[in-house]
Amino acid sequence: MNKHLNRNILRMSTMYVPTLKEDPSDADIPSAKLLTRAGMIRKEAAGLYSFLPLGLRVLRKIENIVREEMDSHGGEELLMPFVQSADLWRQSGRWGAYGEEMMTMRDRHDNEFCLGPTAEEVITDLVKNELRSYKDLPKNLYHIQLKFRDERRPRFGLLRSREFIMKDAYSFDKDQEGLEVNYQLMRDAYSRMCERMGMEYRIVQADPGEIGGNGTEEFMTLAETGEAELVYCDCGYAADVEVGECHPNPVGYVGDTMEKIATPGLHTIEELADFLGIEADGTVKAFSGKDKEGAIWVLFVPGNYEVNEDKAAHVVRGFEPLTDEEMKDAGLVKGSMGPVGLPEGVRICADDSLRDVERWIVGANEEGYHLLGAKQGEDFTVDAWGDLCTVVAGDACPCCGKPLQAARGIEVGQIFKLGTKYSEAMGALFMDEDGTEKPFIMGCYGVGVSRCMAAAVEQSHDDMGIIWPVGIAPAHVAVIPLSTKPDEVTEAAEDVAAKLAAAGLEVCIDDRDERAGVKFADNDLIGWPAQVVIGKRGLAAGTVEVKNRKTGEKTDVAVDDVVSFVESLL
Amino acid sequence: MNKHLNRNILRMSTMYVPTLKEDPSDADIPSAKLLTRAGMIRKEAAGLYSFLPLGLRVLRKIENIVREEMDSHGGEELLMPFVQSADLWRQSGRWGAYGEEMMTMRDRHDNEFCLGPTAEEVITDLVKNELRSYKDLPKNLYHIQLKFRDERRPRFGLLRSREFIMKDAYSFDKDQEGLEVNYQLMRDAYSRMCERMGMEYRIVQADPGEIGGNGTEEFMTLAETGEAELVYCDCGYAADVEVGECHPNPVGYVGDTMEKIATPGLHTIEELADFLGIEADGTVKAFSGKDKEGAIWVLFVPGNYEVNEDKAAHVVRGFEPLTDEEMKDAGLVKGSMGPVGLPEGVRICADDSLRDVERWIVGANEEGYHLLGAKQGEDFTVDAWGDLCTVVAGDACPCCGKPLQAARGIEVGQIFKLGTKYSEAMGALFMDEDGTEKPFIMGCYGVGVSRCMAAAVEQSHDDMGIIWPVGIAPAHVAVIPLSTKPDEVTEAAEDVAAKLAAAGLEVCIDDRDERAGVKFADNDLIGWPAQVVIGKRGLAAGTVEVKNRKTGEKTDVAVDDVVSFVESLL
Repeated sequence: MNKHLNRNILRMSTMYVPTLKEDPSDADIPSAKLLTRAGMIRKEAAGLYSFLPLGLRVLRKIENIVREEMDSHGGEELLMPFVQSADLWRQSGRWGAYGEEMMTMRDRHDNEFCLGPTAEEVITDLVKNELRSYKDLPKNLYHIQLKFRDERRPRFGLLRSREFIMKDAYSFDKDQEGLEVNYQLMRDAYSRMCERMGMEYRIVQADPGEIGGNGTEEFMTLAETGEAELVYCDCGYAADVEVGECHPNPVGYVGDTMEKIATPGLHTIEELADFLGIEADGTVKAFSGKDKEGAIWVLFVPGNYEVNEDKAAHVVRGFEPLTDEEMKDAGLVKGSMGPVGLPEGVRICADDSLRDVERWIVGANEEGYHLLGAKQGEDFTVDAWGDLCTVVAGDACPCCGKPLQAARGIEVGQIFKLGTKYSEAMGALFMDEDGTEKPFIMGCYGVGVSRCMAAAVEQSHDDMGIIWPVGIAPAHVAVIPLSTKPDEVTEAAEDVAAKLAAAGLEVCIDDRDERAGVKFADNDLIGWPAQVVIGKRGLAAGTVEVKNRKTGEKTDVAVDDVVSFVESLL
Repeated sequence: MNKHLNRNILRMSTMYVPTLKEDPSDADIPSAKLLTRAGMIRKEAAGLYSFLPLGLRVLRKIENIVREEMDSHGGEELLMPFVQSADLWRQSGRWGAYGEEMMTMRDRHDNEFCLGPTAEEVITDLVKNELRSYKDLPKNLYHIQLKFRDERRPRFGLLRSREFIMKDAYSFDKDQEGLEVNYQLMRDAYSRMCERMGMEYRIVQADPGEIGGNGTEEFMTLAETGEAELVYCDCGYAADVEVGECHPNPVGYVGDTMEKIATPGLHTIEELADFLGIEADGTVKAFSGKDKEGAIWVLFVPGNYEVNEDKAAHVVRGFEPLTDEEMKDAGLVKGSMGPVGLPEGVRICADDSLRDVERWIVGANEEGYHLLGAKQGEDFTVDAWGDLCTVVAGDACPCCGKPLQAARGIEVGQIFKLGTKYSEAMGALFMDEDGTEKPFIMGCYGVGVSRCMAAAVEQSHDDMGIIWPVGIAPAHVAVIPLSTKPDEVTEAAEDVAAKLAAAGLEVCIDDRDERAGVKFADNDLIGWPAQVVIGKRGLAAGTVEVKNRKTGEKTDVAVDDVVSFVESLL
């Protein structure tokens, strides 16, 4: 029998799968450690990774899921270049504005280019002379292409690499209704992708950031190691804490006058509330920063909440916290800031929830003193109001009122209603039915393809290694003969592998000349959903052992029933 | 009937296929013109192209052919980054040495990188700590990845673009015999790829250039527009004229003495031979240049051959022709150079074929004069000998002696025996069976994937448009209803398309609201191998017209026989 006959069977003996016993010293999260140890990726330089054969199989499966769902939800695939001309970015006004994350270069004729971090400019330029009429719309074009973002501190393996693979789609519509349709199609496609990749995920309200537009949601894989904090509710509501609505219910001071009291050594809200014998929500917390022009602001929120810097930046443009040095220079007293008696020129911004709170318990702008009952409109006035608090678990869901739950997540996709930001800037117009020229209404939709691979591992692994979801596993099942030299065990293994492959399953046979312990460790590490272990003793009784990698459950199965058992397990 | 039910049928009405009536002004060869006009590619900037949906289909087919042949000839696919660290190129000594074609850049921390023009360094570094034993060998790893070469003058569309897609494979062996096996496997794989892409090709001996190594062949698609000149013989021999062996048979001067004769106004070999009443092979042609150190050389070849500058550079290191200015400065007389009486310090190099020719007919280094019978060893001596002539059609085949034929070709692939150049420089060693550490014996094997797309068009097109080979056509057959509004014709077209698709063919239906003339022109331009034209009149008689795009032959076929007829046509 020529054991290499069946090309649908992977062979550990000949594949390039360099597994490692030890965690690489520079891997900082489970996915980076496990994907490296399982011989699936290798770090080439900071933020640059190679995908080895098994890792590439996973990557291609993710790509194909993304491609199929895009195609079945109205997308058309094309491929735009990775290297992009600076001229296009100048047209949109983002050259330079994009910041240091953009990797730029000059060619031999001194023309400027960048490595595409995204492709709004290229696609808008591509279609602008070719989609001319409302009859050519709607259109949804996507590509799966390398991207590059020169992260200040590349880390977290494939989650924050510099060169990565992204699927980015761009929709063009003649009106807002069309955009809503395309947006919903992509929302459905993304949900389906996440499901097919076996991910537990939430669709969360998010911040559009520098891309712009008027509505965006992120697809978050839930994982303890996720960079993003989010809140969600069983009713379907979910939001990144950067944007999640927050409606605190602060308690005001009940007295009629403002009183200054000595609070020696008390610097935190908790210490202050304890001292006063009240809850934190009876106090008001202060946080200092500066705006884009350098003006100093003090922000006030209910004592039981934290100021959210991302939200603050929407109210006070370009908001950045002050350093201790800057606070001192501005004449602010750390641990005792309040709205009354601030240095000349310092502005006051407060959370919306404090609008109806007449009298506040706040710092006195004097070391060791606080004010009880500082009165709005009398003792001080607020210059700007806004939603400033970070939402937390237990807050009421803004949709249904039930208590929110908190989780950490990894962003694997984001969808945006861009509107006309790019089409207007770049003069991408179409002739509408009424005979007038209008800019395209655009949407854009990204999936971090290589990121999904790491996110899946972050969500699904244990101490032994990776536990691949069936939809993106490098193969469905491993066949592990506990014998190294040709004998009845290796023969039975070849036979079982062939039958599994014939049933349409992807099989890897561990035909290496290695001890059982090494084989078990490597196969657990690699994380095929199922393992079929074949030993002499079982074989004598006509059985093999099938292991469910996820549950760890092992079952003795008659050789003839292996295929159907593995199929039901998957 | 939901006409969008069958996803295997492409629809011209909704696909993004922006065909053009006119040639783009900056397209310089047929493939650039036709691929652009057929809505398959778009130029984004000099040497940067987008692949639109139909073009991407062709590209993916080529990729898949390449992938399948690599996998079935011992290759394993992985994916290395496009952005490469300068450090690796410093280890091999090619940083800087690679020249201006390399696109370099610095990241935000001022580390140097390049866009990979090739990946010898990256792969050698990748495997060097992981293939440790002779037992891990042989290994043949490949990837299909973007490449970038900053061409001085990007042109010829996809044939000489700057960003392009290449399959590059690298083999690692423990000895030369292993390399020979891998090289032959790749040679077979490449032949099979070319055949499956429907190409007429030759495997030619070639120049290794800066990659190095000790043996290389190119796979050349024959096309009139090809950049390369090659000679070939029916016996299988073929060579790029840059390296093709050349064995001229020059005729010497038969007299006994050297004689200086007046040749007023005669500057070419043809004029001189005419004047003397002899054939050109009785004269000796001179060609001036300088070497790497700037020393002046005059090269001599038989009068009926041309000096080949690439070959000359192998004999006279760094050989470059002199400009008219430089000739004058060196005291050389254009149109009358000869080996006797050259200015002090000018060196003489001659073609091997002149070794046994005692007396030459050459220039006298004096305007309007030539020498008859200048004698080697007496009147002049030759400083260096070598193979200097460009082989031409009619020369004897070095293998079988039959007359060679000439052709032009487009290089679509090249295979190299690298040896230990990179493994030695980068310390990539393995432990051999005898217990000693040895550098890997490497081979490398490249295919220009995007280039193949253009090469196929260069080889196969006519005045109407592209004629795709079946193996890489964007779809096999177009169904063209000569009706725009729903009627029995459009219904029959949907029916025929569904049947063709059900038979496993890839179908595109031209369901656009366009005149017959527009449809015919666009479908000829796009170049599907077959077209099924459905009109009212034919349908009344129960027939449709099937057109063979290549031959132009049109056949009326009974509706029920369409599938089998199209299948046999393909």
